[in-house]
Amino acid sequence: MTLTPSGKRKMILDVDTGIDDALALAYLVSFDDVEILGVIGTYGNVSTDTAVRNTAYVLERLGFRDVPVMCGSTRPSWAAAFIPDAGCAQFHGTDGLGGFGPSADCAVGRHTSVCDDSNIQTLNPAPNVSDSSGLDVRAMRGLISVGGYDVHDLHANPAADSFSLSFTVRDAGGDNDCEDRSHSPVALPDGVRFLIDAVRFYGSDVTVVATGPLTDVDAALAAAPDITSRLRLVMMGGTLTQEGNCWDATAETNIIQDPEAADRVFHSGADVTMAGLDVTHQCLLGSDATVQWRQAASQSQDGDVRTFLADIADFSIAANFAADPRLFAAGMPLHDPLAAAVAVDPSLVECFDLPMKVETETGDFHGTRGRTIGDPAGMIDPSAPRVHVALTVDHDRFVADFTWRIAQLAGD
Amino acid sequence: MTLTPSGKRKMILDVDTGIDDALALAYLVSFDDVEILGVIGTYGNVSTDTAVRNTAYVLERLGFRDVPVMCGSTRPSWAAAFIPDAGCAQFHGTDGLGGFGPSADCAVGRHTSVCDDSNIQTLNPAPNVSDSSGLDVRAMRGLISVGGYDVHDLHANPAADSFSLSFTVRDAGGDNDCEDRSHSPVALPDGVRFLIDAVRFYGSDVTVVATGPLTDVDAALAAAPDITSRLRLVMMGGTLTQEGNCWDATAETNIIQDPEAADRVFHSGADVTMAGLDVTHQCLLGSDATVQWRQAASQSQDGDVRTFLADIADFSIAANFAADPRLFAAGMPLHDPLAAAVAVDPSLVECFDLPMKVETETGDFHGTRGRTIGDPAGMIDPSAPRVHVALTVDHDRFVADFTWRIAQLAGD
Repeated sequence: MTLTPSGKRKMILDVDTGIDDALALAYLVSFDDVEILGVIGTYGNVSTDTAVRNTAYVLERLGFRDVPVMCGSTRPSWAAAFIPDAGCAQFHGTDGLGGFGPSADCAVGRHTSVCDDSNIQTLNPAPNVSDSSGLDVRAMRGLISVGGYDVHDLHANPAADSFSLSFTVRDAGGDNDCEDRSHSPVALPDGVRFLIDAVRFYGSDVTVVATGPLTDVDAALAAAPDITSRLRLVMMGGTLTQEGNCWDATAETNIIQDPEAADRVFHSGADVTMAGLDVTHQCLLGSDATVQWRQAASQSQDGDVRTFLADIADFSIAANFAADPRLFAAGMPLHDPLAAAVAVDPSLVECFDLPMKVETETGDFHGTRGRTIGDPAGMIDPSAPRVHVALTVDHDRFVADFTWRIAQLAGD
Repeated sequence: MTLTPSGKRKMILDVDTGIDDALALAYLVSFDDVEILGVIGTYGNVSTDTAVRNTAYVLERLGFRDVPVMCGSTRPSWAAAFIPDAGCAQFHGTDGLGGFGPSADCAVGRHTSVCDDSNIQTLNPAPNVSDSSGLDVRAMRGLISVGGYDVHDLHANPAADSFSLSFTVRDAGGDNDCEDRSHSPVALPDGVRFLIDAVRFYGSDVTVVATGPLTDVDAALAAAPDITSRLRLVMMGGTLTQEGNCWDATAETNIIQDPEAADRVFHSGADVTMAGLDVTHQCLLGSDATVQWRQAASQSQDGDVRTFLADIADFSIAANFAADPRLFAAGMPLHDPLAAAVAVDPSLVECFDLPMKVETETGDFHGTRGRTIGDPAGMIDPSAPRVHVALTVDHDRFVADFTWRIAQLAGD
């Protein structure tokens, strides 16, 4: 990776915080030579406003108040609105941080950002749903996404208090109102504009680490195609050689949120490294690590960030174990932290470079919506853009480094 | 590869001949240092008796009358009977050789072998279906497989004249009656017994090349577990990083025939190299090659085998182009010949070694029946058996060598 004159590796994060997003943030700030230019909060594990709020909270707990936190898209490119689903709530808690997130009446300083969730008001689609960009929402595949599934899909399973959550956060107020403008050519979310400006300025000296759906990256490439050849993206998402973690055991959760966006990003020609379940399921964090963090924190003042990180990690360790006691016997998969780590040290993984596609339909001749798979175009066109798909990972080295770095953190 | 004292690489083929099976046979006999110990004909592209008959015919045309041809299984492990399907007929012709196979009244010498197809008499399952092994066929998943799909499945699509074909071949008679004994512990098909004996005798000095379903290999491992650690298998089948070629765009045709058998073979611990669509779709044979073969043949006597090989290849080139004019614009995929080539020269491909599974159910939490995918067991058990999955291939080198070798063949 090229170092900028300051000697720091510049990064932008696009996150849907989320327990493992929070751990990825904590891991990255542990590197003295990494500079986080800004963090974009987007929908996925939680709603965008919750993601923004959680991100600001985590950065504050980590002592990084000055890192800008911005709103990304509030919904996938194929839907007019988004509602978090129960599956994500199971793994992250309905607040996204295992119940250890900021309380509703807690001011998170200038980071607090409220995104326009006016779309999320009803499960009854057409009449009440509007789109500020003027896009014809009726032409969209579906109107409301519940964790990636159309609200009419059998698998749509809204998180129990996703509605009250939305309203709670909106009512909490803040100093940054951001609307969903991801599909308007003239008015993009702040985070997407920031991403475009940063890549225009720094080129491949900045790495974008996306740990949620690829809606923001897709919107940036659509609005500013000139950045494509300069965009260096490391993404957590997808799976090529392993089963998925959605209902169909085929799609991966970040990709199922917005398969169309991911497919466009894969075909864009940007420099994309995919850290999917192929590798993240090999990187398990067990309670031995959180015990270490708690011990380290016990010698410090109250409210040590390491205790918070141990709390959320223990929530995830328990949730993953409950979901699959065999696969996650050794702990929680470090999905997002691994993507962050690959952005810092690409040598952690070995990649297979091939043209990739994301299937957008399910059924005969289509495959499975959300499946990340080789694009046959690559068989006949040697110039088809290739994605670097991580297939192997030095998991012992990464998990040890991750555990150690968190244990060394000095919180706020 | 270890050479035996004679200096020849010993091979056993298990084929469902099939145009590309025939081309694989032709390719292998072009190597002076390859000795084909025997060939097993099994169901798949065609019925077992047609496969045996076609195999014997091709070997005769190639001037290799002395290679033993034996019957393998006549049906998948999950069904009591097998009927070829229309999809295979589309790509191989209903006779398996594009209409260029042996005529019904043509005696193919001592190779002609008639397998017991008494199971294939009716689409009305229970009363008329019997199993010579005494297995409780009612306990099976389905009773009749149509090209891998249960006869009650919407995708079951019998080849137009698969019934008349069965009867034609049976009526043609022969000197080797072989029954379906693949699921009887005491009476196995001749081909399966031969495979067991050869591996017991030669160990890994013999390579088994399977270009059809893995039913025979599975039956051999079940009947003779002692050969497992000595079995060296190169198989054409499956796909890991590319879409499949069945209805669901997920499964590959050889695997869908008998997913249960393939799953057991993958987990057996035998030395398995999988040459699937990941690599075979990169190896396209165009009509420039068949023009060369015809030119070479024109300087020879009538009935040159190269003309026959050009005829069947042109049938497949046209069929593949009709099925997918984009993917197969440059020709037919050399599925089975590539597996044969990898058995001769493993350096043609680069493999990714990982524990593999074959999914046997479709639906939530199951994936897709017939999908070949990494087994999560590999994530938690370092000692889980690994399959060598070919992901890249030196396609230019292989296609050139294949084209050249066929052009040099001197037929019977």
